[in-house]
Amino acid sequence: MTFAVSGVNCAAATPLNADLSPDLGLFAEHCHRLLAEGCHGIALLGTTGEANSFSIAERKLILEAALEAGIAGDQLIPGTGVAAGPETVELTRHALDHGVSKVVMLPPFYYKGVSDEGVYAAYARIIEAIGDSRLKVILYHIPQVSAVPLSLPLIGRLIAAFPDTVVGIKDSAGDLANMQAIAAAHPGFAVLAGADPLLLPLLQSGGAGCITATSNLIADSLRTVYDHTDDAALVEPAQARINAWRALSNSYVQIPTIKAMVGLKTGNAGWNRVRPPMLPLAAAQLAELEQKFAALP
Amino acid sequence: MTFAVSGVNCAAATPLNADLSPDLGLFAEHCHRLLAEGCHGIALLGTTGEANSFSIAERKLILEAALEAGIAGDQLIPGTGVAAGPETVELTRHALDHGVSKVVMLPPFYYKGVSDEGVYAAYARIIEAIGDSRLKVILYHIPQVSAVPLSLPLIGRLIAAFPDTVVGIKDSAGDLANMQAIAAAHPGFAVLAGADPLLLPLLQSGGAGCITATSNLIADSLRTVYDHTDDAALVEPAQARINAWRALSNSYVQIPTIKAMVGLKTGNAGWNRVRPPMLPLAAAQLAELEQKFAALP
Repeated sequence: MTFAVSGVNCAAATPLNADLSPDLGLFAEHCHRLLAEGCHGIALLGTTGEANSFSIAERKLILEAALEAGIAGDQLIPGTGVAAGPETVELTRHALDHGVSKVVMLPPFYYKGVSDEGVYAAYARIIEAIGDSRLKVILYHIPQVSAVPLSLPLIGRLIAAFPDTVVGIKDSAGDLANMQAIAAAHPGFAVLAGADPLLLPLLQSGGAGCITATSNLIADSLRTVYDHTDDAALVEPAQARINAWRALSNSYVQIPTIKAMVGLKTGNAGWNRVRPPMLPLAAAQLAELEQKFAALP
Repeated sequence: MTFAVSGVNCAAATPLNADLSPDLGLFAEHCHRLLAEGCHGIALLGTTGEANSFSIAERKLILEAALEAGIAGDQLIPGTGVAAGPETVELTRHALDHGVSKVVMLPPFYYKGVSDEGVYAAYARIIEAIGDSRLKVILYHIPQVSAVPLSLPLIGRLIAAFPDTVVGIKDSAGDLANMQAIAAAHPGFAVLAGADPLLLPLLQSGGAGCITATSNLIADSLRTVYDHTDDAALVEPAQARINAWRALSNSYVQIPTIKAMVGLKTGNAGWNRVRPPMLPLAAAQLAELEQKFAALP
C-alpha cells in the first residue's frame, strides 16, 4: 500500500527563549536531530508543539526556520488548522508557498457540539479557498483536546469530495478500533496513530504510521518498530523501551515533561520552558524526573 | 454600587455578506438599533458574534466599523481573547488604540484540563504585556464552549493581582449560585449574566447586569427589567416576553436562530448567513420559525 504520508513522524516540541518566544535556532537543531534519529517526517506545530499558543506570524517563522536550516519541505508536516477559517487558509497557503504540501489540519475548535455537516462545510470551504492541487491534508482527530471529534461518516464524506487532497488522518483519540475502522473503510488513506503503543497493531491492520510526542525522544526505537513489524526479536525490546519512556513522559503533565526530557537528553535546560497556559515542571518534579530519566532503558 | 461595566449589553450577532465576509455596514446599523432599543453597551465579537470564526484582521475591521459609524468607544465591549496569547494582546491593544478600554477576554481555549495556575499565568502575561492602565478586562466564563472554566479562587487571584484592570466577568455557565458567589466575594466586581432569565435574580443579589444574545432582539424588555427591578407590574410582562423570545431562539441551534430572528425583525434575509462550522437554518426550519416568530408577544 502506498500512502501520501507514512512512517514515523514526530509531533515536534517547540523550544522557547527566556522571553517565551520560539527559539528558532534550537528548533532547527531539534529537527535535524529527529531526522538523524530516524524520523521520516516532522509534524511541527501540533498539540505537543504548543502551536495554538503561537500567533500566525510566529507559526510562519517556525516553519521558515526549519526550511532555512535545510530541512526539506517534503519532510515537514506543519499543523495549520486554527479556530478561524481564514487563518487556516493563510497558514496553509504559506506552507504551500514554501514548498510544504502536507499539513495536519484541526477542525475549527471553538464551537462545540457542531454538526458533522458544519465541520464538513468548514473543511470544504477551507480546501476550496486554498484551491491548490498540491495540497495534501491530514485531518486531525483529537477530541480530548479539540473537543470536536471527526466521525467516520464525516471522514468518508471529505475523502469522497476531495480524494486527491484529503489523504490521511492523525488519530490521537487512542482508540485502535476506530483507527482500524478508518483504514478498513478507506484503503490507501493514511491512518497515523497519535500514540506509540498503537503503532505496531495499526501497521498490522492497514495503518500508515504514527505522529507521536515520544518520538521527540526515541525516534530510533519507533523506527525499529516501523521497519521490522514482523521481527519480534527486534520489535519487542524497542517497544519495551518506547513504553518505558512514554510512561515516564506521562507521569507529569505531558507537554512540559516531554520538553524537560528533551532537555535532559541534550543537556539544555532551556527546553524546560513552556508558554502559558502550560506551566514548566516544578523544581521537585524536575529533580525526580532527572533521577528516573537516568534509569530509563 | 458602582461597577466599571453594568447594565444591559448585547452579545451582538455579526451579519455576513454573500461571500460570508462581515457585512460592516449592516453591523453598524445593527449596533445603532441596539442602542436605540435600550442597550447600555454592545459586547461585539463574542460567542454569539461568531468572533472565533473571524481572522484577527476581520475582527479589527468589525470594531472599526462600529466606531466609524459613530458608536462611542465607551459603548463597545469587544471580545479579544483568542487561543494564542500574542494575538489576544494584539486585539486588546488595537481596541485601546481606538479608544475602547473595556474588553471581554476568554482564557486561552485550545488546551483542556489546564491548571488554575496555568490560566492565571496566561491572563497575567497578557495583561502585563498590554501594560495599559486604561484597560478594563471582563473575564469570560463559558465552560460549555471554551471548555476552560474560570474557578472562584482563580477569579479572586486575578482581582487581587490586577485590581484596577480585572473589573468583571461574563458568566455564561447558567449557574446563578456561582454568579452570586462571585458577587458576594468581590463587591464592586461586575458580574454579568450570560442568560436573560438570570438578569433579575442576579441584580437582586449584587450583580451588575447582563451580556446576552436575546438582547439582539428585545433589548427594550431587558432594559425594563434592569431599570425597574422592584416594580413587578413592569417586570413581569417584560420577563414573560423575554422568556418567549428566548424559548423560540433556543428551539433550533441558537446562533443561526438568533440571526434569522434579527432578519425577520428587520426584513433582511441576509441575516440568515452564518460562517461554518455554524450552518444556516434549513428552509423548513426557517418557515416554521417565521410562523412562530409572528406569534411572539
